[in-house]
Amino acid sequence: MDDLRRNDQLDEWDRGSFFHPSTHLAQHARGESPTRIVKTASGVHIEDRDGQRWLDGFAGLYCVNVGYGRTEIADAIAAQAKELAYYHAYVGHGTEAAITLAQMVMDRAPAHMSKVYFGLSGSDANETNLKLVWYYNNILGRPEKKKIISRWRGYHGSGLMTGSLTGLEMFHKKFDLPMTPVLHTTAPYYYRRENDAQTEEQFSAQCAADLEDLIAREGADTIAAFWAEPMLGTGGIVPPPKGYWEAIKPILERHEILLVADEVVTGFGRLGTMFGSEHYGLEPDFITIAKGLTSAYAPLSGSIVSKKVWEVLEKGTDENGPIGHGWTYSAHPIGAAAGVANLKLLDELGLIANAAEIGAYLNAEMARALADHPHVGEVRGEGMLCALEFVEDKDRRRFFDPARKIGPKVAGELANLHVIGRAMPGGDILGFAPPFSLGREHVDEIVGSTVKAVRAAGL
Amino acid sequence: MDDLRRNDQLDEWDRGSFFHPSTHLAQHARGESPTRIVKTASGVHIEDRDGQRWLDGFAGLYCVNVGYGRTEIADAIAAQAKELAYYHAYVGHGTEAAITLAQMVMDRAPAHMSKVYFGLSGSDANETNLKLVWYYNNILGRPEKKKIISRWRGYHGSGLMTGSLTGLEMFHKKFDLPMTPVLHTTAPYYYRRENDAQTEEQFSAQCAADLEDLIAREGADTIAAFWAEPMLGTGGIVPPPKGYWEAIKPILERHEILLVADEVVTGFGRLGTMFGSEHYGLEPDFITIAKGLTSAYAPLSGSIVSKKVWEVLEKGTDENGPIGHGWTYSAHPIGAAAGVANLKLLDELGLIANAAEIGAYLNAEMARALADHPHVGEVRGEGMLCALEFVEDKDRRRFFDPARKIGPKVAGELANLHVIGRAMPGGDILGFAPPFSLGREHVDEIVGSTVKAVRAAGL
Repeated sequence: MDDLRRNDQLDEWDRGSFFHPSTHLAQHARGESPTRIVKTASGVHIEDRDGQRWLDGFAGLYCVNVGYGRTEIADAIAAQAKELAYYHAYVGHGTEAAITLAQMVMDRAPAHMSKVYFGLSGSDANETNLKLVWYYNNILGRPEKKKIISRWRGYHGSGLMTGSLTGLEMFHKKFDLPMTPVLHTTAPYYYRRENDAQTEEQFSAQCAADLEDLIAREGADTIAAFWAEPMLGTGGIVPPPKGYWEAIKPILERHEILLVADEVVTGFGRLGTMFGSEHYGLEPDFITIAKGLTSAYAPLSGSIVSKKVWEVLEKGTDENGPIGHGWTYSAHPIGAAAGVANLKLLDELGLIANAAEIGAYLNAEMARALADHPHVGEVRGEGMLCALEFVEDKDRRRFFDPARKIGPKVAGELANLHVIGRAMPGGDILGFAPPFSLGREHVDEIVGSTVKAVRAAGL
Repeated sequence: MDDLRRNDQLDEWDRGSFFHPSTHLAQHARGESPTRIVKTASGVHIEDRDGQRWLDGFAGLYCVNVGYGRTEIADAIAAQAKELAYYHAYVGHGTEAAITLAQMVMDRAPAHMSKVYFGLSGSDANETNLKLVWYYNNILGRPEKKKIISRWRGYHGSGLMTGSLTGLEMFHKKFDLPMTPVLHTTAPYYYRRENDAQTEEQFSAQCAADLEDLIAREGADTIAAFWAEPMLGTGGIVPPPKGYWEAIKPILERHEILLVADEVVTGFGRLGTMFGSEHYGLEPDFITIAKGLTSAYAPLSGSIVSKKVWEVLEKGTDENGPIGHGWTYSAHPIGAAAGVANLKLLDELGLIANAAEIGAYLNAEMARALADHPHVGEVRGEGMLCALEFVEDKDRRRFFDPARKIGPKVAGELANLHVIGRAMPGGDILGFAPPFSLGREHVDEIVGSTVKAVRAAGL
């Protein structure tokens, strides 16, 4: 876009016409909250139209994994837009970009997976997976096995069913969610355990027992799938407690409950491994992918299905004809071209190894600087994910009154220092999820500025 | 993409890794159905990697409204990809492209509308609108007013709730849809009326009476919204019968039932007017937009809300804080840049006027050529939409056995003549929805080839 439009004109249009996501609509329309118009970005930095510049410690919404301004991806998008901006993928149609990306995804996915369906967002990919879970059990003649168990603190989207899967109150309130076929079980969040005396392993055993109880109460014959991020993301950036997945996996197997691994955040390297499923030794039946698939350069998501599931889907179409599921923009060529270029770049620049190495440095440095702070309850993370949880009383794990908005306050002070971290919902939690191209000098800036921001917020 | 990959290699990858939408999965994986790899496209023509060329009489999936190969849009996408491929729109953030597009949409929307929320697909935009309908009634203190009425033959997406809104059996079967808060009422499809003796006006009165009955049965206090395309699209390309909207509108007003106009197909010119709502004199509370917003050059959809609705949303955030709804890719800059360039092009080239003029010529020519054919029950359309419905016995309106697949057969013969029409679900219906840039010579080719295809299919 050119620069002919003045900022005050854009500001007026913004408040008059633009309905922003996850925003206080009334305050924004009244002009009580700022409009920040982002103009350009490069590497790990974004710049607004006033010339202000920030180190983006959250990679957009943990999605710009390869960093901003990658000309290789921009060029691939430009070439695709010129050659063929769009054709659909219905009834066996495809484009070179979409087919190539499908193959590249399956080359990288765990060996027991079979095919990938492309959508646009993590929410729609979870929606696809939920439809397929039901279809799967219908084809297998188990029409009662339809309920879904997800976890409190899980994040799986903000649609009606995907928002139901999400276990965070702000996504339910006033929307009549969760809807009935979704049940929630205990969040694998050791720091917020009820029983102070438990070790991590004991807490994991408790989570497993809670899941067993829920299944017994509902009847295993009614439970279709367990929906989970390998590591909690938006719910607090919380690695699973020791022994958690080892305790959960056999329960799912025993009751023939499908495992859907939501890897929208963890897929394609954020934990320093290609998939979070490998990282934690999971063998999911479905994997949901989105953000890291294109590093957000163009919208694209995916539903990867296992061989076991695919066989049933084939049987289903032999019995019932073409599958009644499709988005007009499934496998959109622009997204597919961005995805091909993005996955190549991850390999060529060794960015996943960098995420592992620099992510470890970030977590270590953050802990060194702030783990002993009297109002920092926990510094935690894995790979290129790191979070700080603020508490009023560290010894007694007593949290701040949410009305004091300590988390947003620290994030605000940090932004004043030109570093972006994210105040996560459901607690006073400051999260970091930087681009994988982060350098040690950027870690030092993030940590140094966080120390200052914590102080500036009065902690 | 380069041409270094051989077609047989791509074919193997396609069958091995790519899960296509709306496809017979088993046949495709076994190699029993063709893989058609589209390579490039220009104007109203697409070309595959074997050098075959088709006149695309369906504009992709009625979405490439300005035609293929528009360098103005490709250049806008390329420039945006280089300057800023992505930043989010949460918490009042924006980009020049997104803000400009919001203003352009509102400049074109009916005067009583207020703001636009941007998503990615028509399905997700309907999902957003459904969440907002519920939120609206919660804020107004009407927690029981939540059911949705849509119409048999309506198409509103293929997610769980949006597929429930859709009134076509192939999108429900084996997916346990429709879900409970959705009810369906009579399709406004005069040609398929039950009572042969009814005039169009009498049939419209019948549709209105059926709606009144359904509302009375359920209780008006439980019905939140009526979901409808101004003119049926995927359900058969059927203009509303005379007097239909005039009969429906007062019922909705009397019972305080919101009207959601799904303009994914009709928005931005397909009926020869900017919106279908103007075309039929509707004053909807929500308008769903997608395809024509970007002509599919990049994924982008939108939910336009009225002033009446926006006031309640503002009240809702004053009472409850930020709205718990957002997609990572809401208002994606690449889609927004494509939308700005697309809407400019529609104006500059007078494409909506062309859709009206050439669409009328298409409908007239198709009727002239085939309306009297003994197996063509009806030729119908509006603007740049046209459909033929095939019947076994025209006098008695007896349809063909679906197992004979007459519709797909005619579409197949037409494709052999290098013209694309679409076999619509739920009948033997051949649909056309060409790009707005269609010329009279293209109409002549479409009509001439359709005549030949009907004959080649043995009708």
